[in-house]
Amino acid sequence: MHFLLRRDLEAVRRSGMRIYSKDGDFELRDVNVAASPVNIGRVDWVICALKATALEDAEALVRPCLGPGTRIVALMNGLGIEQAFAEWFGGQRVFGGMAFVCINRGEPGVIRHLDYGRVSIGHYEDDPAETERLRELLASGGIEVLVAPNLQFARWEKLCWNVPFNGLSVAAGGVGTRSILGDEALSKVGRQAIREVCAVGNADLESHGSGARLDGEKMVDSMFAQTEAMGDYRTSMVIDYVCGRPLEVEAILGEPSRRAADLGVAAPTIDALYALVRAADRRRRGEMAVLTEGDLGTA
Amino acid sequence: MHFLLRRDLEAVRRSGMRIYSKDGDFELRDVNVAASPVNIGRVDWVICALKATALEDAEALVRPCLGPGTRIVALMNGLGIEQAFAEWFGGQRVFGGMAFVCINRGEPGVIRHLDYGRVSIGHYEDDPAETERLRELLASGGIEVLVAPNLQFARWEKLCWNVPFNGLSVAAGGVGTRSILGDEALSKVGRQAIREVCAVGNADLESHGSGARLDGEKMVDSMFAQTEAMGDYRTSMVIDYVCGRPLEVEAILGEPSRRAADLGVAAPTIDALYALVRAADRRRRGEMAVLTEGDLGTA
Repeated sequence: MHFLLRRDLEAVRRSGMRIYSKDGDFELRDVNVAASPVNIGRVDWVICALKATALEDAEALVRPCLGPGTRIVALMNGLGIEQAFAEWFGGQRVFGGMAFVCINRGEPGVIRHLDYGRVSIGHYEDDPAETERLRELLASGGIEVLVAPNLQFARWEKLCWNVPFNGLSVAAGGVGTRSILGDEALSKVGRQAIREVCAVGNADLESHGSGARLDGEKMVDSMFAQTEAMGDYRTSMVIDYVCGRPLEVEAILGEPSRRAADLGVAAPTIDALYALVRAADRRRRGEMAVLTEGDLGTA
Repeated sequence: MHFLLRRDLEAVRRSGMRIYSKDGDFELRDVNVAASPVNIGRVDWVICALKATALEDAEALVRPCLGPGTRIVALMNGLGIEQAFAEWFGGQRVFGGMAFVCINRGEPGVIRHLDYGRVSIGHYEDDPAETERLRELLASGGIEVLVAPNLQFARWEKLCWNVPFNGLSVAAGGVGTRSILGDEALSKVGRQAIREVCAVGNADLESHGSGARLDGEKMVDSMFAQTEAMGDYRTSMVIDYVCGRPLEVEAILGEPSRRAADLGVAAPTIDALYALVRAADRRRRGEMAVLTEGDLGTA
């Protein structure tokens, strides 16, 4: 097994990886690390766990590892991810994975696993034999795997958490999940966002000829119950926000908002979360001016 | 004419008021100022221009100025304002006024008038003779007055601007109107907010037996065209936000959101703006914790 690393490269090379997990801490020593995919070469499986904001880098990072039979798992957030891989490398070898896991990176070489750990998978062309191949691989590593009715279903299901909780954690100014659950007005918006994700997702599934359907009210109950059990979880998007890094705004919010418009489904809550998180990202890039007290005297 | 002042009291007593206006600058010297309504006593008209966040102070501030024939104009933002005055003092003497004006306070004693200046008025019990009395009074002072079909109509009409532009200016992180108009995603949310205000307003008017109706698409066009002409206007709510003052969140966003729920009208955009601006106000009061980089290491 090889790890292509950037920030954590030197730390892992020096002293391996430490995983602090609610299921028990452990260390990986003598990890094969590489700074370039060229130093890895051809492999059987590529698991691509880039941020969606780095999707455009994925082609160049993955290609040196590909042989004729290499398969690729996009273990990433958002919509539109597998399409990109399929265009670059052909859809028959592309899989999507949605990790339902509470995990934060700590100092270099350290991973904190707070809760959950299920991975929901699908094959880009929904080939059952191929899906089973990936299921076996992950299950043999002790990972809880869920095979989704189809990949698109799994993507929308994951968005039922990511849209409300990533979205609100940043739009509400940089807060943890407990601040959302403890605020009735924010929770109401979160519930409405989940209903809209299900409505858009169902229209999308129908337009692709899939009979799979998301049940809005069941998803509301399930997402809120799961989040309640997380404590004051910090979403990946709020961590990026607080640290001043690019936000996965297009993959998690922009694509669903555009898909809704294309399908003619009203999604005002998704639209609002998209616009406001996008504004946060534009402020970070200096593309949107934040007013200060100094601006007001001469207004 | 008497002015009940707080922050500006000493400056105005000392050197009057200076108004920098796009229609021409002028000064008011020897202004009758008072720190307490007791020092003003009974008057014919009270114009109450408090922030909606100070509505609970209005009864004690207005009562010392009331004689049997005193009339009261609530020149304030939001919904539910006149109801409070009517409960305290009786509805027959209560009027509402909506100022469509771009105005900012500068240093004490200074007012900056940037654009517009129309005041839309209505009587709490929709008495035409009473409304005409207020219209004449304001018109005699050179003010452009618009008599609304009824007071509730005028309130919702004003909210067609306040909900999107006050709401977005704060929810987007403290920005001027040009940042909203220049961002297609934020503009889309603003347009949808106006449609929702009209839908809730129309249901409210209908429930009160009024035949007046707001045209959503016309209001969208009109509000955006007027705002386009304002330059990079700073809404009153964004100024309060930047200066760390209480936000008029309940009067401008909370009441419309609750009214929508009571009337069974979907208003997801208003709900979202309410929740997110309320979150900003809760952060200011220290009731909602904002995450910092220091929080993330131990997450």
